[in-house]
Amino acid sequence: MTTPYSNPSYAVRNTFLGVTNSDPSSDVCVAGINFDLGTSNRPGTRFGPDAIRAASRMLYDGQNPFSWVNPLDKLKVADIGNIPFPMGQLEKGLEAIADQTGGFKHLIALGGDHMVTFSLLKALTKKTGPLGLVHFDAHTDAWPTCFGEPWGHGSVFRRVIEHKLVDPKRMVQIGIRAKVDRDVYDWLLAQGVTVIWANEVHCSDPIKIAERVREVIGAQPAYMSFDIDCIDPSQAPGTGSPEVGGLWTWQAVSIIRHLAGIDFRGMDTMEVSPPYDHAEITALAGATMAYEYLCLIAKQS
Amino acid sequence: MTTPYSNPSYAVRNTFLGVTNSDPSSDVCVAGINFDLGTSNRPGTRFGPDAIRAASRMLYDGQNPFSWVNPLDKLKVADIGNIPFPMGQLEKGLEAIADQTGGFKHLIALGGDHMVTFSLLKALTKKTGPLGLVHFDAHTDAWPTCFGEPWGHGSVFRRVIEHKLVDPKRMVQIGIRAKVDRDVYDWLLAQGVTVIWANEVHCSDPIKIAERVREVIGAQPAYMSFDIDCIDPSQAPGTGSPEVGGLWTWQAVSIIRHLAGIDFRGMDTMEVSPPYDHAEITALAGATMAYEYLCLIAKQS
Amino acid sequence: MTTPYSNPSYAVRNTFLGVTNSDPSSDVCVAGINFDLGTSNRPGTRFGPDAIRAASRMLYDGQNPFSWVNPLDKLKVADIGNIPFPMGQLEKGLEAIADQTGGFKHLIALGGDHMVTFSLLKALTKKTGPLGLVHFDAHTDAWPTCFGEPWGHGSVFRRVIEHKLVDPKRMVQIGIRAKVDRDVYDWLLAQGVTVIWANEVHCSDPIKIAERVREVIGAQPAYMSFDIDCIDPSQAPGTGSPEVGGLWTWQAVSIIRHLAGIDFRGMDTMEVSPPYDHAEITALAGATMAYEYLCLIAKQS
Amino acid sequence: MTTPYSNPSYAVRNTFLGVTNSDPSSDVCVAGINFDLGTSNRPGTRFGPDAIRAASRMLYDGQNPFSWVNPLDKLKVADIGNIPFPMGQLEKGLEAIADQTGGFKHLIALGGDHMVTFSLLKALTKKTGPLGLVHFDAHTDAWPTCFGEPWGHGSVFRRVIEHKLVDPKRMVQIGIRAKVDRDVYDWLLAQGVTVIWANEVHCSDPIKIAERVREVIGAQPAYMSFDIDCIDPSQAPGTGSPEVGGLWTWQAVSIIRHLAGIDFRGMDTMEVSPPYDHAEITALAGATMAYEYLCLIAKQS
Amino acid sequence: MTTPYSNPSYAVRNTFLGVTNSDPSSDVCVAGINFDLGTSNRPGTRFGPDAIRAASRMLYDGQNPFSWVNPLDKLKVADIGNIPFPMGQLEKGLEAIADQTGGFKHLIALGGDHMVTFSLLKALTKKTGPLGLVHFDAHTDAWPTCFGEPWGHGSVFRRVIEHKLVDPKRMVQIGIRAKVDRDVYDWLLAQGVTVIWANEVHCSDPIKIAERVREVIGAQPAYMSFDIDCIDPSQAPGTGSPEVGGLWTWQAVSIIRHLAGIDFRGMDTMEVSPPYDHAEITALAGATMAYEYLCLIAKQS
Amino acid sequence: MTTPYSNPSYAVRNTFLGVTNSDPSSDVCVAGINFDLGTSNRPGTRFGPDAIRAASRMLYDGQNPFSWVNPLDKLKVADIGNIPFPMGQLEKGLEAIADQTGGFKHLIALGGDHMVTFSLLKALTKKTGPLGLVHFDAHTDAWPTCFGEPWGHGSVFRRVIEHKLVDPKRMVQIGIRAKVDRDVYDWLLAQGVTVIWANEVHCSDPIKIAERVREVIGAQPAYMSFDIDCIDPSQAPGTGSPEVGGLWTWQAVSIIRHLAGIDFRGMDTMEVSPPYDHAEITALAGATMAYEYLCLIAKQS
Repeated sequence: MTTPYSNPSYAVRNTFLGVTNSDPSSDVCVAGINFDLGTSNRPGTRFGPDAIRAASRMLYDGQNPFSWVNPLDKLKVADIGNIPFPMGQLEKGLEAIADQTGGFKHLIALGGDHMVTFSLLKALTKKTGPLGLVHFDAHTDAWPTCFGEPWGHGSVFRRVIEHKLVDPKRMVQIGIRAKVDRDVYDWLLAQGVTVIWANEVHCSDPIKIAERVREVIGAQPAYMSFDIDCIDPSQAPGTGSPEVGGLWTWQAVSIIRHLAGIDFRGMDTMEVSPPYDHAEITALAGATMAYEYLCLIAKQS
Repeated sequence: MTTPYSNPSYAVRNTFLGVTNSDPSSDVCVAGINFDLGTSNRPGTRFGPDAIRAASRMLYDGQNPFSWVNPLDKLKVADIGNIPFPMGQLEKGLEAIADQTGGFKHLIALGGDHMVTFSLLKALTKKTGPLGLVHFDAHTDAWPTCFGEPWGHGSVFRRVIEHKLVDPKRMVQIGIRAKVDRDVYDWLLAQGVTVIWANEVHCSDPIKIAERVREVIGAQPAYMSFDIDCIDPSQAPGTGSPEVGGLWTWQAVSIIRHLAGIDFRGMDTMEVSPPYDHAEITALAGATMAYEYLCLIAKQS
Repeated sequence: MTTPYSNPSYAVRNTFLGVTNSDPSSDVCVAGINFDLGTSNRPGTRFGPDAIRAASRMLYDGQNPFSWVNPLDKLKVADIGNIPFPMGQLEKGLEAIADQTGGFKHLIALGGDHMVTFSLLKALTKKTGPLGLVHFDAHTDAWPTCFGEPWGHGSVFRRVIEHKLVDPKRMVQIGIRAKVDRDVYDWLLAQGVTVIWANEVHCSDPIKIAERVREVIGAQPAYMSFDIDCIDPSQAPGTGSPEVGGLWTWQAVSIIRHLAGIDFRGMDTMEVSPPYDHAEITALAGATMAYEYLCLIAKQS
Repeated sequence: MTTPYSNPSYAVRNTFLGVTNSDPSSDVCVAGINFDLGTSNRPGTRFGPDAIRAASRMLYDGQNPFSWVNPLDKLKVADIGNIPFPMGQLEKGLEAIADQTGGFKHLIALGGDHMVTFSLLKALTKKTGPLGLVHFDAHTDAWPTCFGEPWGHGSVFRRVIEHKLVDPKRMVQIGIRAKVDRDVYDWLLAQGVTVIWANEVHCSDPIKIAERVREVIGAQPAYMSFDIDCIDPSQAPGTGSPEVGGLWTWQAVSIIRHLAGIDFRGMDTMEVSPPYDHAEITALAGATMAYEYLCLIAKQS
Repeated sequence: MTTPYSNPSYAVRNTFLGVTNSDPSSDVCVAGINFDLGTSNRPGTRFGPDAIRAASRMLYDGQNPFSWVNPLDKLKVADIGNIPFPMGQLEKGLEAIADQTGGFKHLIALGGDHMVTFSLLKALTKKTGPLGLVHFDAHTDAWPTCFGEPWGHGSVFRRVIEHKLVDPKRMVQIGIRAKVDRDVYDWLLAQGVTVIWANEVHCSDPIKIAERVREVIGAQPAYMSFDIDCIDPSQAPGTGSPEVGGLWTWQAVSIIRHLAGIDFRGMDTMEVSPPYDHAEITALAGATMAYEYLCLIAKQS
Repeated sequence: MTTPYSNPSYAVRNTFLGVTNSDPSSDVCVAGINFDLGTSNRPGTRFGPDAIRAASRMLYDGQNPFSWVNPLDKLKVADIGNIPFPMGQLEKGLEAIADQTGGFKHLIALGGDHMVTFSLLKALTKKTGPLGLVHFDAHTDAWPTCFGEPWGHGSVFRRVIEHKLVDPKRMVQIGIRAKVDRDVYDWLLAQGVTVIWANEVHCSDPIKIAERVREVIGAQPAYMSFDIDCIDPSQAPGTGSPEVGGLWTWQAVSIIRHLAGIDFRGMDTMEVSPPYDHAEITALAGATMAYEYLCLIAKQS
């Protein structure tokens, strides 16, 4: 239907950035993954993808005021919908997700709980080998088990490292501040992981943090995983395991904007839980992180 | 993407009943109309269409337990998205909507404020002539003006009758209970309109109410307009002009189910305002009314 | 400021029914009483008066569709603001309220917790002697003490009867359903109080309930006290001591409408707690009860 | 700590009815089961037990105004806390729950999603053999699979019947109204299950419904399973799969009160999802159903 | 009514700072403007004025701890209520507002959407000529059109500059961070507008920002327009077009406090949308900005 | 019940940090004080203790990532429940609390409104004599009266100083920013109290603030009182008297962590009001402050 009217944000269809393209062979595909069986506290991330889509419509119009890019002008972007998986089955679900997410040129996944990143990296590394990892999070997610179980979002990066999906020497965690046993932390350091505590970001400058990240990651292929609980609970209440004292969105956005040069192959925004959100602010934060990532790769493309 | 997995409700795409068809020549088209400039109290109905779509996914699976019909098995149903219109312009907006909604075989419109029904009827009656009207509402919407202005959702059915879009002798209002001046009410009666007060429904049986409606409407073409504020504020808090003492959803559903035989040509569900909703219950009520209407016409088709 | 524009509800000043008159010698005065020290469960009724005022603006325009009266046409109504009292002092507060509320021609009080009714009756009965009482509530409020203390909203009608502010033989409680000790109930019956359980209303007809109330009250002066928790928690979530299975607003409205003939001398709407309300539905219910009472006395004046 | 002060509801410890006893050999044990992996729509029932406990404190004081019983005077009641289970593991979780819930004299379980009832019945029927079942629900929960998977709350009563945990001829479902395929419904009828639709309750009298239930169940041992979505979404918004047109709490309470004579051996209140609740009204409804059941068995003990 | 009791905040009447004066010839008048037809995303600002008034009562008592001024001691302040306008009519509404707001000595307007500022400046500049402008906002609001329409809150400052209501060389925008096309930004720079990005504030000191603002504005008459979305969504969720990464309230307050010396002639606080607020924090932020402005001019008077 | 399963946070019992110990002779006792009669604005702190307990379960597992201590490994910690007091009686309630809180080895009290600190200090100083005080707050709470009354949370520290419960020369207030009369502030300075304004914290470094606090307090016994409104309303909306521009949780946590060496004898977390909270973020902030205090004393023990 062609009309002389230009729809305001609220009347745009609720896909990511309002795109109408759903071609899976596009330059960048956005997919929802409504999987949340790995959640150890408040649930709800199954509704994350739709909430992020709806909020992203605030961002569909105009250029990024840092890079002066409108990503939709530079890249063919598709919203390919949600990835199906068997209900209630943790391991089979993780496999189903891995089976279906390897074939895209460049995938931005909207979660879902953080356990899903294991599947995404498993699928992606078949093509790339072990990746560098820029990991925003309040938690190391590196416990040997998650409340006694091997699979769960509290142990996902232990599993990711054990399965050699990332190169721990090229892995950096930003925003860490949650309770963690000293031996878990020591294990991470022993693997070569770089941990940037939330307070380090508060007492420094995002541009310098970005510099440090770029040094750790280097020139080889890398991945970005953004757990929204990296952000402070006031700006991201809609998540399952909030921790006080988190990063500010302006800091996270600024760090992402200054990661130009990294060879990113994929990204995810995880742990947005709409039932605990208010006025869409968490969904908007999640959408903004995916949008800024998209601008970053659009600028370089 | 074909997969062996059957998506649970929460992972279905948020179109009406999760349909993937968007062909405007389908048997029935569902369209969102995010227009709300006629609202005289609490705003927010611009977000009604998406909220009704999301909630409708609860209803996509299984048969209607009254008519034992799954409407998607009997009719080709499309969700054609939202109708564009110029922002902030009441009269021009109403015209734009009328211009774009006349060409469908059978339209179910999701509002938006009730003023929109004027445009929908204007477009539809070009093909049908004056229609019978089954009008669920807490308000007669028949004031000569709406707070001094000719256009506004408080005077829409005055305008509809004046423009001969409906035949007032074949018009019935169900659920009326709001404050209204006696001369407004007398004007309606003088036109031949049948008014069924909310308390009459509470003290009667929905099947008998439906009988009375069928008698008023008769065999000629008709339209159903469902203002969600017909329903009690406890079941439909998400609306702009709530009035205590409203119909129960079970009564409204039962009335609709017993309207078989009426020659319906279109329907709208109006005044769902998500910012005032809680736990999606208003959106679900709105979605259910559209779904029951769809089952009604599917059964007859 | 005189203008050619007629303000829609949302732009009317938030006094009761939007009245601009605040003359304490008016026919009917509406006053807020933000006192809530007698609350034994969830607090918040100190904000009840303003919430009821704001919601009442939905009702300022048009005639009552039962009595075809607009009360503002028949009576000079004032909103005289809130009654001051010393903060944090239960007994002194009750006295301060009694001291300041005896001088009005006819007072509609907006609470505040139900303990306040003691003060209102104490002030009013100085002029009238013991009153008949139409008391809507989920609770008898007749415990000998309220969690061990003599003053508290759980024992207010014990106190009221003991102080001979009402004539228990002309007192009827409607909507009762909460847990209560048998001996408390027996004490009420022994005093001559009539108790109409919520289920009796559900299984009867409001007009018959009203008839029974009129018989109990008779022709002498009477008072109406409306505790919003009389209404079901779905329609009145914004209150401190909700009990499932309550009266419906349509039943309560219908009962009030059929109390014509009773010689009412005052009324209160109590226990509206905005922090627990949603979409103003409780405040609207409270405002509607006060409005219907006002219509009732306007019709008779 | 003994003190002269009697704590008001809000200061009572948040166990079920505020009991301090946690002895597992008590007459009646209340246990929380925070398991929700079988949920096919909105999550959150893992927080159901604590929300029901908190709300139940409104009910700890006074006698039931129908049976004039205070259950804590007649029975030794314990709140034994929450049943542990492995995180994220559906089948293993169900087994763990079954393993731990068979040893109580009489168990009232607070869910959790409805899949849990399978485990509870599996444990209980080891002692009792197949049970009669009074099942309140909006859904038959009798689909052959739940979105393609054998385990899930949409197919739990199919599994329960297949495993002969209940005698379908002594099973009655009350409040059914959700979409369901005709062959699923026919299968239920073929098994001998009695289905009482929600509208039958609306158009009848709860006492007659109770009579019919008692006839179906007879004198042999039975179980009550209360899915809170049996209740209308306005009174129970805090649940995952709401359906409009549900039972009223007063109807459900009245039905339970009139089930005296049935030989109940256990009960559960399921599907309370606090993230979707408002002002605790769903939790209060759930607590009230467990409380009324407790009064029923206390009266008979 | 004189009483010995001093009302706590919650019992003060809900005018701005609880003032009882409504004389339009006062030193400073506060007016609500419930106009929101220019809103391109989430609505609700029609309820902004009352929410700001209610929240302002927290500020009515005591002195400003920076300037040690209580503005009510230094200036005669009136709350003159809401400005009427025709419902649903964008252009006519803007004219009506301009017609009615030119006659005050000094006006603080509470919006309403930002389009209203056009009318306020149109009225005010008849007396003052083009003004300097201190404009707090997340958006430049300088698009040539707002989704294709000339009038809308996204293009208001384009219109304001085109109509020469401000002198762009004496105009500074603070807090800008939203998506904007490069040519829109270049147009602003070409006009001479000073843009201070949100990140500049985060990486600087509010006192230095204030210095820069004072330099731009100079000694001639000026106006302050405060769009609440200048503030971060965590501190101001209740607005229509939130953007992550906003200013902190402490920064904004500090900037305003250090603007002494500017010859302000009026101020507005816009875009507070109560339906999206939580716990009144946005309304309180809006009220605080108006209060700090009032203290600023009181100190200088 | 011993099981092989380790309960995730959401299934842990809702005591402080999930402890099962309730022995009042433990090293540290945590008690709830549901007293809120001293509240001059929004109520609700009576529900603070339970909300803090529920949120604290997020913190029960793992070590503090600053001090690498798990306090439950170093200290015997008990949650002894709530302190009873007579309902509705301000002075008698304060006495009752003082009477019951003097006997613990080390008490962490969860409020409740700030008036309660008077009782806690009265009880504690019987053993210690006048204490040093680390007082986090938005308000000085030093008004001569609270809206005309001697007792109220706005004058509590005036009373505390007058009763010589603290040594004002060893008292420091952190986060102050609310309106206050100059003479109240001057009185504080004259007593020797150190006031650290919120903006000083924003423009400084928490470690330096902590240094200053340690200097003021010195080596003698001290107490910490944490009013949650010290924190910004975005991070702590759930409180009664919010003030914009507050401390960030990361700053407060960092200050507490650097107070090692102070001889603390007790602590309270006050003014958490759950009805105004969202997604538990205020309760989590309150729980975190008590947790960090506990880690501080555990590290030193």
